[in-house]
Amino acid sequence: MATKRTKVKRLPKRGHYDRPTIDAILDEAILCHIGFEVDGQPYVIPSLHARVGDVLYLHGSAASRMMKRLAEGVQCCVTVTLVDGVVLARAVFDQSINYRSVVVLGQARLINEPAEKLVALEALTDQLVPGRWADTKPPTRQQLKATSILALPLDEASAKIRTGPPGNYPEDAEEWAATWTGVIPIAQAVGAPIPAPDLPKGVKVPKPVAEYGKRFSR
Amino acid sequence: MATKRTKVKRLPKRGHYDRPTIDAILDEAILCHIGFEVDGQPYVIPSLHARVGDVLYLHGSAASRMMKRLAEGVQCCVTVTLVDGVVLARAVFDQSINYRSVVVLGQARLINEPAEKLVALEALTDQLVPGRWADTKPPTRQQLKATSILALPLDEASAKIRTGPPGNYPEDAEEWAATWTGVIPIAQAVGAPIPAPDLPKGVKVPKPVAEYGKRFSR
Repeated sequence: MATKRTKVKRLPKRGHYDRPTIDAILDEAILCHIGFEVDGQPYVIPSLHARVGDVLYLHGSAASRMMKRLAEGVQCCVTVTLVDGVVLARAVFDQSINYRSVVVLGQARLINEPAEKLVALEALTDQLVPGRWADTKPPTRQQLKATSILALPLDEASAKIRTGPPGNYPEDAEEWAATWTGVIPIAQAVGAPIPAPDLPKGVKVPKPVAEYGKRFSR
Repeated sequence: MATKRTKVKRLPKRGHYDRPTIDAILDEAILCHIGFEVDGQPYVIPSLHARVGDVLYLHGSAASRMMKRLAEGVQCCVTVTLVDGVVLARAVFDQSINYRSVVVLGQARLINEPAEKLVALEALTDQLVPGRWADTKPPTRQQLKATSILALPLDEASAKIRTGPPGNYPEDAEEWAATWTGVIPIAQAVGAPIPAPDLPKGVKVPKPVAEYGKRFSR
């Protein structure tokens, strides 16, 4: 997993290259950020993703600049970041955040087979809410045509994780003794589901929607 | 603000170009994702940021590949995304998320003046927690030297926002009447501050730490 390009060089203790660690971060995140370049300008665009085995599926309008560019097989980077806390040290230099991130490098492959497109769309739908695919109207042939699906292999990926208390220096303890130091935990809060205006009375909130908070490990 | 490159082309109704909208999203976010390219490979790296007027400050180790590359004045992209909800429509095609994002394109300028570096570090520290700069040990001369500060002008920036209920088609209402449709609100949850192991007894949690949740508008 660790190639010359994905090896964490700054603070190498934070680097992780095992797939269970990488997969857990990818699977918990609601969205990723996709990096690609057009005419010498890098772009970073938020997007939904879904991991199936060793592949990360991405989707978007077939008309979008990003999907068209990625479909050319250009180098891209998909990054996922979960924020777990604000780390307040005694020294400005040591302020930080607790986070879990994954960086995937590579070239995406455009999927043309309708059967594989449906597999990917099912994964993307169920990544949003588990079991959602079974409850929703499948794409029409026209919608399927208007949707580009890309598969990015997880061959070149790495995770970076910071956890725990601030890295205070003992020598600052006396002079800055009055300064509060510690961590503010940050997590995802899930509110009560808001029914759509056109939801008929009596339709119950499905369990995976009611228990949505379970997807988040923090 | 809207240039040919930042004009939102897909779903143009979601595009916003006024600075108050852009600034509010940048200021609420804890972190951004920075896109840049090295040897034909785009990278997307999570990082802290702080806006001061018309400039976005970024900082990092002077030894980091990203800071060295950005300091060369290459084109870069800084993207900030806030997730507000999971949007569950009756049709797979209409699943979405509610979000607020900002994309900034341009070239960053390396700041060499120690005085301006300190202004930027103060902004970055107070962006993490308001008023934190006054309570913490300023950087030593060596630390200041080891820290690169970049300023990215907000000349070319755009926001993209989705809010509200799912965009269900009336024709799906009958056949998929049993499907729950609506929005799962997502927000940031702030846990009780965790004191560092070396925090002396009796040091109170500062107000901006205790009230950290106020930074989030959702």
